[in-house]
Amino acid sequence: MLYERDNIHRLTPYTPGEQPQRADVVKLNTNENPYPPPAAVLEAIRDVSADQLRRYPPPRAQQFRETAARLHGLSPEQVIATNGGDELLRMAVTVFCEPGGRGIGETYPTYSLYDVLAEIHGTTITQVPLAEDWSVPEDFAQRLNERGCRLALLVNPHAPSGRQEPLDKLERVARAFRGVLLIDEAYVDFAEFDATPLLDPERGLDNVLLLRTLSKGYSLAGLRFGYGLGHPRLIETLDKARDSYNTDILSQAAATAALSARDEARKSWEKVIAERARLTGALRQKGFTVAPSQSNFVLASPPGGGLSAQAMYRALYDRAIFVRYWDAPRIQDRLRITVGTPEQNDALLGAIDELSRAAGGASAS
Amino acid sequence: MLYERDNIHRLTPYTPGEQPQRADVVKLNTNENPYPPPAAVLEAIRDVSADQLRRYPPPRAQQFRETAARLHGLSPEQVIATNGGDELLRMAVTVFCEPGGRGIGETYPTYSLYDVLAEIHGTTITQVPLAEDWSVPEDFAQRLNERGCRLALLVNPHAPSGRQEPLDKLERVARAFRGVLLIDEAYVDFAEFDATPLLDPERGLDNVLLLRTLSKGYSLAGLRFGYGLGHPRLIETLDKARDSYNTDILSQAAATAALSARDEARKSWEKVIAERARLTGALRQKGFTVAPSQSNFVLASPPGGGLSAQAMYRALYDRAIFVRYWDAPRIQDRLRITVGTPEQNDALLGAIDELSRAAGGASAS
Repeated sequence: MLYERDNIHRLTPYTPGEQPQRADVVKLNTNENPYPPPAAVLEAIRDVSADQLRRYPPPRAQQFRETAARLHGLSPEQVIATNGGDELLRMAVTVFCEPGGRGIGETYPTYSLYDVLAEIHGTTITQVPLAEDWSVPEDFAQRLNERGCRLALLVNPHAPSGRQEPLDKLERVARAFRGVLLIDEAYVDFAEFDATPLLDPERGLDNVLLLRTLSKGYSLAGLRFGYGLGHPRLIETLDKARDSYNTDILSQAAATAALSARDEARKSWEKVIAERARLTGALRQKGFTVAPSQSNFVLASPPGGGLSAQAMYRALYDRAIFVRYWDAPRIQDRLRITVGTPEQNDALLGAIDELSRAAGGASAS
Repeated sequence: MLYERDNIHRLTPYTPGEQPQRADVVKLNTNENPYPPPAAVLEAIRDVSADQLRRYPPPRAQQFRETAARLHGLSPEQVIATNGGDELLRMAVTVFCEPGGRGIGETYPTYSLYDVLAEIHGTTITQVPLAEDWSVPEDFAQRLNERGCRLALLVNPHAPSGRQEPLDKLERVARAFRGVLLIDEAYVDFAEFDATPLLDPERGLDNVLLLRTLSKGYSLAGLRFGYGLGHPRLIETLDKARDSYNTDILSQAAATAALSARDEARKSWEKVIAERARLTGALRQKGFTVAPSQSNFVLASPPGGGLSAQAMYRALYDRAIFVRYWDAPRIQDRLRITVGTPEQNDALLGAIDELSRAAGGASAS
């Protein structure tokens, strides 16, 4: 007998990138930071006592909120801590979108989890295609308003292209859109600016919500810790729908330590940014088309005449080099490659050369 | 401007018990285990490496599932790991209940989070009052069927009374109910039996889901780790609606170590059970009415003629002894008291004596 709702029965769940347990994989498929988290994070974890584990954690992660507020020049009432950035996305869909309609608006392509969350909630999805250069069309908000969308989801820097939209454009979207604009800044630590100026009370925007995660910038994908920044009323509203103790004491301690060690984390961002430039240049030299990226990955299209993106993805996989590939419109001719360490990037570039030689040899034989 | 859905706007969020940061509180208000978690848990946490934190965790907590399956004599396909038991409750409401109707069925009283989750989802709530002795009426399933409920939520041992319904009664409910029966076994480690026999394939029940948590029995309320046990089809369905990485690497490691150290945890259960008997006896000697409990708390009604339950709750609070009180029908004359260490229970009993003397003195003056 079927017990679940029809939309759940029909649902194709989100497919996370493969997480191999093998240590020998060059793992450039899920945008982890290749450098370790700040040392203070491990210390903070090891300092958590048996008695702290025994008791319920502070339900709203107050110490973390105060730390994040100081870092961003905001008040703790503008911060909500979540079990990964994904939980903030789910909560936003739950709180702002109606089952049966008045749902989410997004670009195409975008982070594929958005659609899964909308389908679980049984709300509608409005997709606006990005321009050729992956920029957001100027009529984005208007088209969402016409469809009655209540929540606009913009990942910025964009995934999977890496493009970052400027602040003035984001502000225009926020002013024009009649619902909540959630700017998913999962990758913002690798960019030149972030969208926190939009939260300045002088701008008078009450519908902007920023998503942050410690998974990428702070090398803590294993921790599941994200947070939202926004107008106190939005934060208070989301807080009502939060699972009552959504973040645990270990992750609260680790996340607080991580933000406090931002200068150490920043050194890893600088290394990633430098490698991003080198990797982009090297791929272009090999004939790849590579979109300019403000993130810790690049979206790269292999040169014509050789292996297709899908064939290259598989051939790299067979050599224990994991990158991400989607068989989906507009991106099926590209690979999304996480920026790794110099050694990892060299391994990738070397393997691409070998594959090109083999393909050339095969076609010559 | 209001951006949220009407049901969220109207929502009164769940109120967790107070979590004081002061160390001098005798904390008998949120059913924590008074003894520390098994030593292996802290070791497992401290063994998590920087590289494990850097990477995404196993999305389905496979090692934990295998450990839990072995412990319960089930297969890993019958186990789902969740961010606290509360997450399993939310997922069950999301997956099985329709917004606008065909919602949850529950007893009254029960764990008050159930209603909050139903209201967030915008589904209906059907309440069936418990009998005078806190037992579930025999027509419980029938009444839920009449109202089209899709999910029955039974906390067993019951909160806040501590009563445990026998297996044959649970089985009758499961057979009669046309939706999913979720038995919330948050407190089962302190009881004489659990409901896992209902999952035996020979019984042919495909609609039973058991909730477990490490918060109470394993002294890990700070960790936020729970799990569900049920028919593989139910587990697979819930898994579709799971946040993609819902449990982190630290809690997976800690939870796996905790279940593996069950014999050590069991010693704390035995001490709690012995103290439960002593506390129950002592309270009854002082004239309290105390329901028989199979849990790590007792529901106790102060004797007539002295302080009301609410006044006693406040007077104890002023003496830094926290118990739980609800100003709600059928329980507003009672206190829910977590079983503490012998010293904590003595502090409570001594304070009650003092309050009685003071009340007696005041009325004599």
